[in-house]
Amino acid sequence: MHTVRIKDLYENLHLFDNQEVEINGWIRTVRGSKKFGFIELNDGSFLKNVQIVLDRSVIGNYDEVVKLPISSTIKIVGIVVSTPDAKQAFEIQAQRVILEGTSNSEYPLQKKKHSYEYLRTIAHLRPRTSTYYSVFRIRSLVSYAIHRFFQERDFVYVHTPLITSSDSEGAGEMFRVTTLDLNNLPKTETGEVDNSEDFFRRQTNLTVSGQLPAEAFALAFGNTYTFGPTFRAENSHTARHASEFWMIEPEMAFADLTDSMDIAEALLHYVIEYVLEKAPEELEFLTQNIDQGLLTRLRETAKTSFARVTYSEAIELLQKSNHTFDYPVTWGIDLQTEHERYICEEIFDRPVFITDYPEKIKAFYMRQNEDKETVAAMDLLVPRIGELIGGSQREERKDVLATRMAEFGLTVDDYEWYLELREYGETVHSGFGIGFERLIMYVTGMENIRDVISFPRTPGNADF
Amino acid sequence: MHTVRIKDLYENLHLFDNQEVEINGWIRTVRGSKKFGFIELNDGSFLKNVQIVLDRSVIGNYDEVVKLPISSTIKIVGIVVSTPDAKQAFEIQAQRVILEGTSNSEYPLQKKKHSYEYLRTIAHLRPRTSTYYSVFRIRSLVSYAIHRFFQERDFVYVHTPLITSSDSEGAGEMFRVTTLDLNNLPKTETGEVDNSEDFFRRQTNLTVSGQLPAEAFALAFGNTYTFGPTFRAENSHTARHASEFWMIEPEMAFADLTDSMDIAEALLHYVIEYVLEKAPEELEFLTQNIDQGLLTRLRETAKTSFARVTYSEAIELLQKSNHTFDYPVTWGIDLQTEHERYICEEIFDRPVFITDYPEKIKAFYMRQNEDKETVAAMDLLVPRIGELIGGSQREERKDVLATRMAEFGLTVDDYEWYLELREYGETVHSGFGIGFERLIMYVTGMENIRDVISFPRTPGNADF
Repeated sequence: MHTVRIKDLYENLHLFDNQEVEINGWIRTVRGSKKFGFIELNDGSFLKNVQIVLDRSVIGNYDEVVKLPISSTIKIVGIVVSTPDAKQAFEIQAQRVILEGTSNSEYPLQKKKHSYEYLRTIAHLRPRTSTYYSVFRIRSLVSYAIHRFFQERDFVYVHTPLITSSDSEGAGEMFRVTTLDLNNLPKTETGEVDNSEDFFRRQTNLTVSGQLPAEAFALAFGNTYTFGPTFRAENSHTARHASEFWMIEPEMAFADLTDSMDIAEALLHYVIEYVLEKAPEELEFLTQNIDQGLLTRLRETAKTSFARVTYSEAIELLQKSNHTFDYPVTWGIDLQTEHERYICEEIFDRPVFITDYPEKIKAFYMRQNEDKETVAAMDLLVPRIGELIGGSQREERKDVLATRMAEFGLTVDDYEWYLELREYGETVHSGFGIGFERLIMYVTGMENIRDVISFPRTPGNADF
Repeated sequence: MHTVRIKDLYENLHLFDNQEVEINGWIRTVRGSKKFGFIELNDGSFLKNVQIVLDRSVIGNYDEVVKLPISSTIKIVGIVVSTPDAKQAFEIQAQRVILEGTSNSEYPLQKKKHSYEYLRTIAHLRPRTSTYYSVFRIRSLVSYAIHRFFQERDFVYVHTPLITSSDSEGAGEMFRVTTLDLNNLPKTETGEVDNSEDFFRRQTNLTVSGQLPAEAFALAFGNTYTFGPTFRAENSHTARHASEFWMIEPEMAFADLTDSMDIAEALLHYVIEYVLEKAPEELEFLTQNIDQGLLTRLRETAKTSFARVTYSEAIELLQKSNHTFDYPVTWGIDLQTEHERYICEEIFDRPVFITDYPEKIKAFYMRQNEDKETVAAMDLLVPRIGELIGGSQREERKDVLATRMAEFGLTVDDYEWYLELREYGETVHSGFGIGFERLIMYVTGMENIRDVISFPRTPGNADF
């Protein structure tokens, strides 16, 4: 006899029926009467608990066990018994209960409902609730599905650096990384902080994107992707922004904007199919408790081909809609969340790629179109979330790129290596970035980014 | 006809034989005579090039093409022809060559050999060399094998935070993360820097380990793992230390030190088997050019069960060896690399777990053994590298843990949540950390950590 996990019992009941097993776990509920007691036990391997039946005449420490506080750790030795007529497919008739750790009766996760706000203050315990258990298990599955998708297609995974001496390429505010003693800063002759005394002999920051280094790898491996943390030091207090979050950034040589959209669409289909297959219990739970439309939306999206319109067409559609927006719609505006959601929720009722944005509202590295007013960019908008993916064909023409960099006020010296990628074997290439947490919000129905990150970092909050 | 990748040609030659194909790629070598020319073309999908045969009477722009600088990008339309008697299994008889991007003839990666030192200065180009191509493709495969191993076993992948307000738990120097303006620091009344004005309203640093937060997840999910970047602000200039590197940290509830070693051993076997299967060309190349013993060592290690000895036994073995070490061997010392390598290379000739180290040289969270002198720790030592894995059973007894924290001078306030994990359902649990770059050095034969990281960060160096 060896220890079995509850997941294995659920998945392979026929192997264990009428067998003696040993199970470790935490008590989720316990109640006892004169003759019989019942424990809902969970060992973390499965969303569902297993029911343990205690017979006072069998269990020597019965009185002690039925009074154990919730979350106490026990080991059960017992017989697996199928119960085909009951709600649960089987139960364990305990023979022995070995106490491993008695919980404090002040355990904060008692049966009653708690607010998300409160649960964030106990982020070290909240994965034990069914909601967060489901979210974080799905997060793990989605991570893996993304790797599997790219690895099956021979994309090379590259870990691009987190500490960087480049600036933010206009993507947002950055965190500084330093080993200088702030109470005793070295100064230059002119009285400024002497950055040459810092650890890296210059000022360094936390990266906002792995794209530029990933391009170097795409021009060596053809197809590459990053999947790592990125940082924004913006004082945003919205439900969609965190200071530390993960991004997936594929980058492909010999691929244009259409290829890039094809890959993005195939990836999302793949991820959703994978979660539908691997987390049916979690999705069922989230649909019942968090977002009633979740399962239907995921099943539909997995089969739907995404709409594709240009920015100019999207502007026209919004203008023709006669809907009143807080931000008026004119060609040249940066689409707001209200516009993005209207396009994918009301006009198309499915994910929508918007392409060919005005160059003035997009990054310097995006390829200029022939009209010299727009760039070969694409954003994927999805219902409920808005922008989930942003990508582009990259400007491969060195002279055009250098001009764009100058227009954006970037110092060519800092990007010499990036320009060199265009000098030694330039080619059409494209890529995109997926905000990983937004994807998790999309596939779990959670509405606040703080509830899909293990220990979220936001302005003023770096607890745990 | 659509574009095919060179890898597909090698793997499915029968599908393409005598077919017309279109191939994109970079010129690795080119030479032309009066009648015929030859191009070695690479598209990044495969370590090996494909040979393109150019017939002057067929190729309109023949004279231009054979003079193209190395690394120019071209598109070839041609016929795949098997050449069973030649060194290469097939070649492409070109019908058309379309020029996509002419490289600068000063391209630094000409045929001649370059030093590692020089190649580090062109880290954006070096993945195009066979050595770095092999290393970074293997790095990608190993990453994936690790995920696959844990996901097949239902471990939940958790992204633990990078920005942390905890201190380093004695693991090393940390980088500070700040948005304060160093040239205009806010001060408290006593003239110190006012950390409450910083982004997170306190001092924050980059993490040195994801273990402590991973423990919270282990006590919810049973089995969990992290795989993410960690940081050390140490002024180390060795071939084995980088300031930014990745670690894998599994953490398992209901698992003791032996379970932990079993998982670590199974993981390494799995990873090596995976690389042997998926990267035969790369391993062959590295064995021929970098480390002659590589393939033999990997094949043997994949089948070998690892030795397991206690620290006390290891000390005795070293003392009995009569070998002269720079650092004398006495019970209580921290083993040096010379000792570690002697144990696994000379005494055991295979990977060795050393267990039950003196508590004075190990971290506060390791479980105290009954002798109260040692802790349930384990290090895995491997030939050529020394320490590859470090782990332990975690101290689950709250009172013992609190005492150890006090001995280590840690503030209980900062770790209240960590102590609470012992209060609400304590149980035996264990885990370990693998230095990912050391693992890559082990499976590629590379001797400097700077050569297994895309854009390495070391003291004074944050280029690209």
